[in-house]
Amino acid sequence: MISKKFKDMCNTPSVIRALAGYANERGKEIGYENVFDYTLGNPSVPVPEEFNKALRDLTAELPSSALHGYSPNPGNPEVRSIIAESLKRRFGIPYEQKHIFMTSAAASALAHAVRCVTEPGDEVLTFAPFFPEYNPYINQSGAVLKVVPANTEDFQINFEAFEEMMNEKVQAVLINTPNNPSGIAYSSATLKKLADFLYAKQEEYGHEIFLISDEPYREIVFKGADAPYVSTFYDNTISCYSYSKSLSIPGERIGYVAVNPKAKDADMLVPMCVQVSRGIGHNCPSSIIQMATARCVDMTSDLSVYETNMNLLYDEFVKLGFTVVKPGGTFYIFPKALEDDAVAFCEKAKKYDLIFVPSDSFGVPGYFRAAYCIDTEKVKRSLPVLEKFVKEVYGK
Amino acid sequence: MISKKFKDMCNTPSVIRALAGYANERGKEIGYENVFDYTLGNPSVPVPEEFNKALRDLTAELPSSALHGYSPNPGNPEVRSIIAESLKRRFGIPYEQKHIFMTSAAASALAHAVRCVTEPGDEVLTFAPFFPEYNPYINQSGAVLKVVPANTEDFQINFEAFEEMMNEKVQAVLINTPNNPSGIAYSSATLKKLADFLYAKQEEYGHEIFLISDEPYREIVFKGADAPYVSTFYDNTISCYSYSKSLSIPGERIGYVAVNPKAKDADMLVPMCVQVSRGIGHNCPSSIIQMATARCVDMTSDLSVYETNMNLLYDEFVKLGFTVVKPGGTFYIFPKALEDDAVAFCEKAKKYDLIFVPSDSFGVPGYFRAAYCIDTEKVKRSLPVLEKFVKEVYGK
Repeated sequence: MISKKFKDMCNTPSVIRALAGYANERGKEIGYENVFDYTLGNPSVPVPEEFNKALRDLTAELPSSALHGYSPNPGNPEVRSIIAESLKRRFGIPYEQKHIFMTSAAASALAHAVRCVTEPGDEVLTFAPFFPEYNPYINQSGAVLKVVPANTEDFQINFEAFEEMMNEKVQAVLINTPNNPSGIAYSSATLKKLADFLYAKQEEYGHEIFLISDEPYREIVFKGADAPYVSTFYDNTISCYSYSKSLSIPGERIGYVAVNPKAKDADMLVPMCVQVSRGIGHNCPSSIIQMATARCVDMTSDLSVYETNMNLLYDEFVKLGFTVVKPGGTFYIFPKALEDDAVAFCEKAKKYDLIFVPSDSFGVPGYFRAAYCIDTEKVKRSLPVLEKFVKEVYGK
Repeated sequence: MISKKFKDMCNTPSVIRALAGYANERGKEIGYENVFDYTLGNPSVPVPEEFNKALRDLTAELPSSALHGYSPNPGNPEVRSIIAESLKRRFGIPYEQKHIFMTSAAASALAHAVRCVTEPGDEVLTFAPFFPEYNPYINQSGAVLKVVPANTEDFQINFEAFEEMMNEKVQAVLINTPNNPSGIAYSSATLKKLADFLYAKQEEYGHEIFLISDEPYREIVFKGADAPYVSTFYDNTISCYSYSKSLSIPGERIGYVAVNPKAKDADMLVPMCVQVSRGIGHNCPSSIIQMATARCVDMTSDLSVYETNMNLLYDEFVKLGFTVVKPGGTFYIFPKALEDDAVAFCEKAKKYDLIFVPSDSFGVPGYFRAAYCIDTEKVKRSLPVLEKFVKEVYGK
């Protein structure tokens, strides 16, 4: 019989996808260059040429069975070692091959991590604003996602609300820094305070609380931002990484789980990920994509355009009187809407072909997200339109 | 807290993997060419050169965002259309793009299919001998896998046992033809009888019963075998395909779900797969691998070596007095062991460096599987060793 749950889910389409679809349709009418589409977090800068070269070279260098044959379940061993070495060198944590599990990007990493450290019915806490796909990621695992209200002052953690919601059923805390949608990176002070609190609660409850750290934007950090590596602060950390944004290869579905070597059962967590993957049909990312990524392990695309775009938008929002916290990374900015109803605000902006995503699905009312992974030229052209919209509609 | 379920699963390693590991270790001692390793179903013939060429060409032809950008959730639309057209042309079923969902090979296809057509606690029936990974694939979805005993006469379906086990809680039947481990293809007569029975039971119970057809060996069919396309027989069929064996690219993790256009809610099943994938972190196979595969959609590797190897082994097994059913496809053969205890039989064979997999984990006692996706030259060298083993140990 057809599953009611999954059939019903088809009727609740993503707000982001719906707006992106609208932008696309509108583009067909008036030319896509005239639609200021700030909806999707889809990298606009090209992959490093070294990645394509690696793909070509690999087809020439390796015999078919070595290149296209099965990876062992946790991933290509050499690729895992290269990643462990790189993380160790960069962040000073003594990762080894055995701590790295290759995944189909961050979504897959989170799907594995949450199943390893929760039982059905356990609670996972995350902090608003948060990526709305955490709902299916966590809830379909059998655990229950609960969202701690935002600290709208600076989008660091709202510790007061967090302490209130913490209870013995919480087995994992899920964070995302630099953050989608706020663009904010958690500071050293925030992470230190979070770690201290979790250590104390572990002691009090007599069980581990894992920190699942979703890090697809780790390499997109802006000048002056304090955006430290999460796992440095707390031993029971599982880092979930994706190359989608850093190498501009979101379609290639490649990332990893990195288990802090000091975590409880650190040597077991990767074998456990293997067991999880048997049930969800994961069985490794593509073999050639793993190998090509390893050849680019310390590279990124030219990510500087995102900072350029951020500065243009931030300055404009400030000039126009928006309340907005300056992003420390990512390619998102998250200003307060000019009326309480963010949906109404975004509907009005649409009339000017400015397509923003209202904040409600991110767990905070009254804000909106602009994804500025688009051409700088288009960002520049959007600024006078934004000014016109604000003046005409809100009289500012 | 660490999940007890997944931690415990780490302690029950796969028999096949353990034997493959032994073969590998033994190879280090005596030279791998001297170990007759019949353990793993890992394709030995190379990928068609067109596939590697497609990878190279794509890096030159397409801009980065088109090549490496996000696929829509069900997969690249053009790739899905190409696959639908190919299936329609070959099997006469009017598939369209909307019926195809791209997956990370057959494991992922099964993971999605079972979640779409069962609720937790529902039963899924399969037929022994069966691929033991069906246990985690099905049971971790929340449904319960039950195994119908084998028809050891010819390894078609044991309908008597099947009818006894059928009940209202059965929402799906999972078949695998040509079959791992038996090598047998279900005949037209078997599939007709299966379809008639399922139609009658749908009527009787007043709910659909889906046929999930696992087809990674569909293209490896031997001369004279009656191995028809399953979906032709029964409307509520979900075909789960993998290119791992047909193109010799098991590491690239590419396959699809194909929903019969006459299935109940046929237009909903692919959108439902999308919803399933949100929770298990699948989000499409690699973009470039999808596109390269589409360029090879009607190709296969040179699969003829498998038939050559099968004939050599089959003739030898018959000559030596084994009870064995001649495979109609795959690269497996499944003879009866020369004593009741297949594990003991395989242990004795190991002394001759003949590495077979005992049948117990496939749901049938007393048989063994030989995976002959190895060089023909090695198969030939193994025959006198097999003869020596049988003579010395079993006096035949």
